[in-house]
Amino acid sequence: MIETDISKAILDTYHRREVAALANDVVIVGAGPAGLAAGYFLAKAGVKTTILEKRLSIGGGIWGGAAGYNVIVIEDAEILDELQITTKKEKGLYLADAIEFATGLAYQAKQAGAEILNLMQVEDVIIKNKGVEGAVVNHTAIMMAGLHVDPYCIASKCVVDATGHAAEVVAMLLKRKPDLVPRGIQEGFMDVRTSEAGVVEKTGEIYPGLYLAGMSVASVFGLPRMGPIFGGMIDSGKKVAEMIHAKLRAA
Amino acid sequence: MIETDISKAILDTYHRREVAALANDVVIVGAGPAGLAAGYFLAKAGVKTTILEKRLSIGGGIWGGAAGYNVIVIEDAEILDELQITTKKEKGLYLADAIEFATGLAYQAKQAGAEILNLMQVEDVIIKNKGVEGAVVNHTAIMMAGLHVDPYCIASKCVVDATGHAAEVVAMLLKRKPDLVPRGIQEGFMDVRTSEAGVVEKTGEIYPGLYLAGMSVASVFGLPRMGPIFGGMIDSGKKVAEMIHAKLRAA
Amino acid sequence: MIETDISKAILDTYHRREVAALANDVVIVGAGPAGLAAGYFLAKAGVKTTILEKRLSIGGGIWGGAAGYNVIVIEDAEILDELQITTKKEKGLYLADAIEFATGLAYQAKQAGAEILNLMQVEDVIIKNKGVEGAVVNHTAIMMAGLHVDPYCIASKCVVDATGHAAEVVAMLLKRKPDLVPRGIQEGFMDVRTSEAGVVEKTGEIYPGLYLAGMSVASVFGLPRMGPIFGGMIDSGKKVAEMIHAKLRAA
Amino acid sequence: MIETDISKAILDTYHRREVAALANDVVIVGAGPAGLAAGYFLAKAGVKTTILEKRLSIGGGIWGGAAGYNVIVIEDAEILDELQITTKKEKGLYLADAIEFATGLAYQAKQAGAEILNLMQVEDVIIKNKGVEGAVVNHTAIMMAGLHVDPYCIASKCVVDATGHAAEVVAMLLKRKPDLVPRGIQEGFMDVRTSEAGVVEKTGEIYPGLYLAGMSVASVFGLPRMGPIFGGMIDSGKKVAEMIHAKLRAA
Amino acid sequence: MIETDISKAILDTYHRREVAALANDVVIVGAGPAGLAAGYFLAKAGVKTTILEKRLSIGGGIWGGAAGYNVIVIEDAEILDELQITTKKEKGLYLADAIEFATGLAYQAKQAGAEILNLMQVEDVIIKNKGVEGAVVNHTAIMMAGLHVDPYCIASKCVVDATGHAAEVVAMLLKRKPDLVPRGIQEGFMDVRTSEAGVVEKTGEIYPGLYLAGMSVASVFGLPRMGPIFGGMIDSGKKVAEMIHAKLRAA
Amino acid sequence: MIETDISKAILDTYHRREVAALANDVVIVGAGPAGLAAGYFLAKAGVKTTILEKRLSIGGGIWGGAAGYNVIVIEDAEILDELQITTKKEKGLYLADAIEFATGLAYQAKQAGAEILNLMQVEDVIIKNKGVEGAVVNHTAIMMAGLHVDPYCIASKCVVDATGHAAEVVAMLLKRKPDLVPRGIQEGFMDVRTSEAGVVEKTGEIYPGLYLAGMSVASVFGLPRMGPIFGGMIDSGKKVAEMIHAKLRAA
Amino acid sequence: MIETDISKAILDTYHRREVAALANDVVIVGAGPAGLAAGYFLAKAGVKTTILEKRLSIGGGIWGGAAGYNVIVIEDAEILDELQITTKKEKGLYLADAIEFATGLAYQAKQAGAEILNLMQVEDVIIKNKGVEGAVVNHTAIMMAGLHVDPYCIASKCVVDATGHAAEVVAMLLKRKPDLVPRGIQEGFMDVRTSEAGVVEKTGEIYPGLYLAGMSVASVFGLPRMGPIFGGMIDSGKKVAEMIHAKLRAA
Amino acid sequence: MIETDISKAILDTYHRREVAALANDVVIVGAGPAGLAAGYFLAKAGVKTTILEKRLSIGGGIWGGAAGYNVIVIEDAEILDELQITTKKEKGLYLADAIEFATGLAYQAKQAGAEILNLMQVEDVIIKNKGVEGAVVNHTAIMMAGLHVDPYCIASKCVVDATGHAAEVVAMLLKRKPDLVPRGIQEGFMDVRTSEAGVVEKTGEIYPGLYLAGMSVASVFGLPRMGPIFGGMIDSGKKVAEMIHAKLRAA
Repeated sequence: MIETDISKAILDTYHRREVAALANDVVIVGAGPAGLAAGYFLAKAGVKTTILEKRLSIGGGIWGGAAGYNVIVIEDAEILDELQITTKKEKGLYLADAIEFATGLAYQAKQAGAEILNLMQVEDVIIKNKGVEGAVVNHTAIMMAGLHVDPYCIASKCVVDATGHAAEVVAMLLKRKPDLVPRGIQEGFMDVRTSEAGVVEKTGEIYPGLYLAGMSVASVFGLPRMGPIFGGMIDSGKKVAEMIHAKLRAA
Repeated sequence: MIETDISKAILDTYHRREVAALANDVVIVGAGPAGLAAGYFLAKAGVKTTILEKRLSIGGGIWGGAAGYNVIVIEDAEILDELQITTKKEKGLYLADAIEFATGLAYQAKQAGAEILNLMQVEDVIIKNKGVEGAVVNHTAIMMAGLHVDPYCIASKCVVDATGHAAEVVAMLLKRKPDLVPRGIQEGFMDVRTSEAGVVEKTGEIYPGLYLAGMSVASVFGLPRMGPIFGGMIDSGKKVAEMIHAKLRAA
Repeated sequence: MIETDISKAILDTYHRREVAALANDVVIVGAGPAGLAAGYFLAKAGVKTTILEKRLSIGGGIWGGAAGYNVIVIEDAEILDELQITTKKEKGLYLADAIEFATGLAYQAKQAGAEILNLMQVEDVIIKNKGVEGAVVNHTAIMMAGLHVDPYCIASKCVVDATGHAAEVVAMLLKRKPDLVPRGIQEGFMDVRTSEAGVVEKTGEIYPGLYLAGMSVASVFGLPRMGPIFGGMIDSGKKVAEMIHAKLRAA
Repeated sequence: MIETDISKAILDTYHRREVAALANDVVIVGAGPAGLAAGYFLAKAGVKTTILEKRLSIGGGIWGGAAGYNVIVIEDAEILDELQITTKKEKGLYLADAIEFATGLAYQAKQAGAEILNLMQVEDVIIKNKGVEGAVVNHTAIMMAGLHVDPYCIASKCVVDATGHAAEVVAMLLKRKPDLVPRGIQEGFMDVRTSEAGVVEKTGEIYPGLYLAGMSVASVFGLPRMGPIFGGMIDSGKKVAEMIHAKLRAA
Repeated sequence: MIETDISKAILDTYHRREVAALANDVVIVGAGPAGLAAGYFLAKAGVKTTILEKRLSIGGGIWGGAAGYNVIVIEDAEILDELQITTKKEKGLYLADAIEFATGLAYQAKQAGAEILNLMQVEDVIIKNKGVEGAVVNHTAIMMAGLHVDPYCIASKCVVDATGHAAEVVAMLLKRKPDLVPRGIQEGFMDVRTSEAGVVEKTGEIYPGLYLAGMSVASVFGLPRMGPIFGGMIDSGKKVAEMIHAKLRAA
Repeated sequence: MIETDISKAILDTYHRREVAALANDVVIVGAGPAGLAAGYFLAKAGVKTTILEKRLSIGGGIWGGAAGYNVIVIEDAEILDELQITTKKEKGLYLADAIEFATGLAYQAKQAGAEILNLMQVEDVIIKNKGVEGAVVNHTAIMMAGLHVDPYCIASKCVVDATGHAAEVVAMLLKRKPDLVPRGIQEGFMDVRTSEAGVVEKTGEIYPGLYLAGMSVASVFGLPRMGPIFGGMIDSGKKVAEMIHAKLRAA
Repeated sequence: MIETDISKAILDTYHRREVAALANDVVIVGAGPAGLAAGYFLAKAGVKTTILEKRLSIGGGIWGGAAGYNVIVIEDAEILDELQITTKKEKGLYLADAIEFATGLAYQAKQAGAEILNLMQVEDVIIKNKGVEGAVVNHTAIMMAGLHVDPYCIASKCVVDATGHAAEVVAMLLKRKPDLVPRGIQEGFMDVRTSEAGVVEKTGEIYPGLYLAGMSVASVFGLPRMGPIFGGMIDSGKKVAEMIHAKLRAA
Repeated sequence: MIETDISKAILDTYHRREVAALANDVVIVGAGPAGLAAGYFLAKAGVKTTILEKRLSIGGGIWGGAAGYNVIVIEDAEILDELQITTKKEKGLYLADAIEFATGLAYQAKQAGAEILNLMQVEDVIIKNKGVEGAVVNHTAIMMAGLHVDPYCIASKCVVDATGHAAEVVAMLLKRKPDLVPRGIQEGFMDVRTSEAGVVEKTGEIYPGLYLAGMSVASVFGLPRMGPIFGGMIDSGKKVAEMIHAKLRAA
């Protein structure tokens, strides 16, 4: 029956991808701007990368621009040119359509070879001697439905927290290791210039095996918040990709 | 101050786009597979097209594949090849990644020149002598928040109902014109073969100025439902684009 | 890593079971008393049977006895003796512990070889020329979470509606075929004697390929309701198993 | 088409106002009695003032009087006479209709030239070297709907926290600067006489660029609460207007 | 004690107003644009008028303009000039600030002598031989809280349904007298010109003692909807006031 | 242990009462004014009576008086004098405190010997040859919690529907016997005089074994509603008690 | 019109009671067993007493007995005999019907002259030099509905916190005076004997003008909890009444 | 009448069981894997054991396997063989069907003689001189419905906290005895090997009369979490049964 042929094809394909995703070089948590950029550059460099996204769709905070005005701003168009995303320059700022930016970024990351599993929520991390060695995951739908069901585990040489303002992976560590970030997870007051530069500078490894990229850098280091400007996000994603790639090559 | 420069750039850009979208050749309601495909082919043909999407992200029912297994099936890969979306053939079916399919389709529609306004909900239609002449819209956020606030109006030479199973625009007509679809809006029992063919065949104008594309065709004509196979959706979007383009050229 | 070995073992095992369940002799919808009894007798007779249960746990309305007093009543202990469920006779009625009854029944059905997939909701049925030929299913969690995600399909030579008072599968048919049960789905006023006999008598095929068992018989035929007495449920499950087994053997 | 002419006129007018509100002398957060009074006196003095109100309507806690009995009390009718709001003297207290008081106050503030943007929520403040230099805002509807969308920024020479009991702007500072109000934001026990006087006395600048007016004064300084008597609110609004006006003139 | 002096003053004042409102010439249900305009003109003519508003604040759908852009449009500024509400003419349309319009209208109605009781919900009407003779009311808070508490009664020579789209008072009659409006309460498709004229024309008495004004006229007579243009609302309120005044003078 | 001695005493006492309530002369559904009055007069006459109340507390709509002003009105104080409830006469109306009225009525019913089981919801009725022969009940908490648990049964020579406006027991009959009250369950417009007399007149048997008392009389017979006046309620309760007592004595 | 005569009679009567309740000898917060007993004994002694109850009905935790088995236990029947509430002795414990106990207690308190205002929530207390001098109140419905409306004030020579486990009035003091009960408001583990005696012993004045009675004594002093035994509650209510009466007489 | 005969049989049987459960050797809180295993081994050894389960069904976190893939893993099949639960060995791990495991375990515990009361929530514990001497319980439905109703008490020589991750009984002690587990109740990061061994090792008495079994051991001692592997749960249940049995025999 054609109906079950279709079902079988989907079940088999997804199962192969889900099993393949049990062992990774890099697991990126969150498919927002920084996570997708990191995934694009890692996959392009041939690193086996899985991006876990808890929502049904990717893109994080990109879609609504500012207050629902779906336009985003960037100060340097070089990477967007590489990603073939249209920009328009006005008074020294580059403007892009939020929907083209979100979809173009994810489309290029997929084309480059990154795996993206959506509807997949990270509940916790695996920590053994070497540090973070994987993620404990569950289906988002099960968690939204409040069902009492155990998670399963995904192994990874390193994990990138690209979950945005909440820095969700760091927050899991903080529950048992409050000294890691004694001041807590919180951004400073809005100040674009300071933050755009600071986020890229502070991008890196916060705990053995755990890297930060994008807004989670700002909230873990208490940098200012920045609003609908995304250059720092993309640059941070690119930088974390380069750092991890270098380290994996060295290992 | 850089912060307000960014804000001003976004407000101005969005305002220009929002005002430009007050007058259109075609308004497509719904940025799911059929709506995006219709938008891609219309924009490619140079028709001024605005897609209104009530959600924050585009893609409709694509993202979750079947039951959350994020893979979709298509029986003919030609259009996906044109859209540069990767497919893999297995036992006569083409399989694609749901995320690549959703983002690739929207990205190509944007690149082709279609405008997409998300977070924008169609409350009603404008009907005058010639039939449907536009859409009555409101911000989704205002409707989700339950605020008592009036809508505004968008003019269009024709409107495409690409809202999926609910056929939301047709449903607005039915409230005052119940004879339009006396049997009501409802698909038949699952039967893929019958439906894939029927949806494309029945795609077209249901009321002066109002066209149907995608699953709304199935539910308005009582065709069988079909599940996570998307060939009919894409073909229906292409067909409606060609019909409208021909008509506008003729006018 | 032991954590991913465990994950892989579970993913593989479940995938094999899920794919195996795409083609069945019988699909039973609902793992309450009638569905479990039908599953037990069908599996014991060697019929390939899958029970789909939308909840996390099986048992339906058994667990709470009457008003939370977790005791159930049965008028004839023969089948419970076969299932090794303890009963106690008092003034002509057999009393059993609701928890032992629910778990014993499911345990014996599993031991007899029935497959039970929980957290699996039937959204619709497949109807082709021969009548009902399968079920359209989705993960319960996805439906509870209100996510917009397509279902997949399971084939079956026949389907048993053992969903209890709501007769959920019949209700799906009624939406498009209201003449099937013109009086609607509703039980009559409480009257135990009439109902216990009537439910067994009316158990059977209501539409080509669709059988009724348990309380759905009462609500489709307008029989009286009966409360926490379960003899008719078990006997109805046994009868439907025998009818289907005979038919499949004859085919 | 008249419908889109109306839409365009509204979109253009609002856009001009929204862009104009990106740069201000004073931003007042909250359009309750103190915020509206401050806005009236500032605008009358020619200071460029924008009042941001998160609700759909203005007036804050005025509308319901005491326990829904829509009458309010004031001890001195001078300002209400200036605002042409009817009062009636009984046993030494002036009584006014709550609805006339709320609408009259807002109407006079608007007539005097204050801009009021409703449905606009302050998420955070901009702090640079000189102190508070603006507000980070979002549409209330987006926040009520729980959508993940970035805010935008409004510049201002100073900001007035007129948000009432919650002192919402001060609370934002406290999250990162807990020493600013070590005892926390909380009023004392009800005591009208002490509070009416104290609120006016303590009205002023609490942090460079951030002023307090109205009930937020009481909760930041731990003064007694006071109930449906509004003299202190109006006087506090007037005083903060005079302080800011003097300072801006001096600058 | 000053605190209880204030309380007593409020309780006594409100009680006098609440008792006075038990007997009226006119009860207007709804303090939106039409209800407030009707109240203003009736009170100015010396008719004893009480406006009942279920919300905490007055203004109905005025506050948000179109889609939250808080600007409203009117085609003739004469009445707004009389009400001292600022308008600005652009391309043949008069534009007003939604907040100034809402507060100015209510403020003038109060100054003219209309009583407005907010937080007061009309549950039903009193109908005796002469037709509608009053309203059955309850505190909104009691209804919002879902408390099982009886209403009380307010007498009136006539009642105006100015509840907007829902035509709430007419809907109460329809529950027992479905023949009154056989086509049901529903506006037609958006068409500003037709509706602005039609609403004023059809304003009047729909049942002995029950008048319609504002959007309830459109939804009872199936006229087109009109969006954020308010000339018809104000004119309809003025017209119903003149009709009632003439009738009461004649009686 | 004293704690379990107390528990055992309560469990035993309640069990004796619950079992005793399985067989009754009369079951009254609803412990509002009419149900309590009926219970008082039946118990006083020596009839075995159980009142089932779904809420935690008794009294129905008495507690809040009118709009939360906890005072009730009655036109004749005779029965209240018998029940030792204080009344005060003003301008031809007797006024009583709502709390004293509710508690005094229930207290006297209990003292007279009526059993009251609260937190007990009637789900359905038992109908056999003679008509209504009992009630199908469940614990309210189970129903509020939405748990899927069967009810149990209580026998009774007759049942009184004293559930107020909703006429809940009649509504259960209507689901299967729509001809019983073809016009549906709904009161008329407010008219105190007509209703006070009519409710008492129409009190009686609506179906073999099923009696009506109190507001359910008004909504079943379409009589006018009446608000916070309780004479008709009490008289209706007394009348139904006398009718049933006479019938049972005759049997 | 009779309908408005009834309304006026209720409004006037309630207004007189509400104004009379602005000045009291004693305000008791909570109409559970301790509050009602205190009210009964104070009123019997001629002290002007108002009981404020936030719920619609009185009785607090009495109605459901233990786990919904509506029976309560008491160790000494003397006070219940005085209140004419039926008890039955079994194995050294007196058992009473929960409904008769709740209604009888409230009925006797009313008959003795206590005022009970239900649907009235205490938001805060008035504290001046002498200590607690009154209560800040609002309508429960307004608070349940989440409306932003100010409270009003009630004066009293002393206030009794009879709010049960939560000790709500003490909790208001604790927010500003955490040293009053440094260990916080929390009962100890269940131990009936210790608690029954301790609650009565510790009943008394906790802060100038503020008394404790009933379960709030246990939670403020960390005494064991006790379950459905009510002797200590009644005795505590009686004791607090005697203490206050003595003090007021002495003043 | 057969309906009330059935009701009486159930009420009587449940009452006997509920009263019998007032005095126990062991009360186990939670019918998940550890609680059911402990119940099985204790009952088999002849110890009077009651398992209290707050949900309607037993099984805790077993039903959903990992992420809804209803398969569980165990490293040693010995106990499952004893319980007659089917396992299948793959690459050194034993796999079992989650539904067969949950129902088989509960069924065997019941057959061995353990009492299971479902829908019964433990609110608190009884602590006297010897330590924990029982549980304070209420019907789950009453707590889910938010009804204000007292609990009752169950005596026991010891109590086992088998409530899983939340360690609910220990949490009750912690509220008053924070020093018992100063680091709080929280598991460590996922690490199967360490946890499987540690949970069994640390199983035992945490406070006089209170034992820990299963996941509550991990969260009280801060051991790593472990996911869908259940060997440690079963072994911990067996160990706690042996420890308690030994102690009771010694007493």
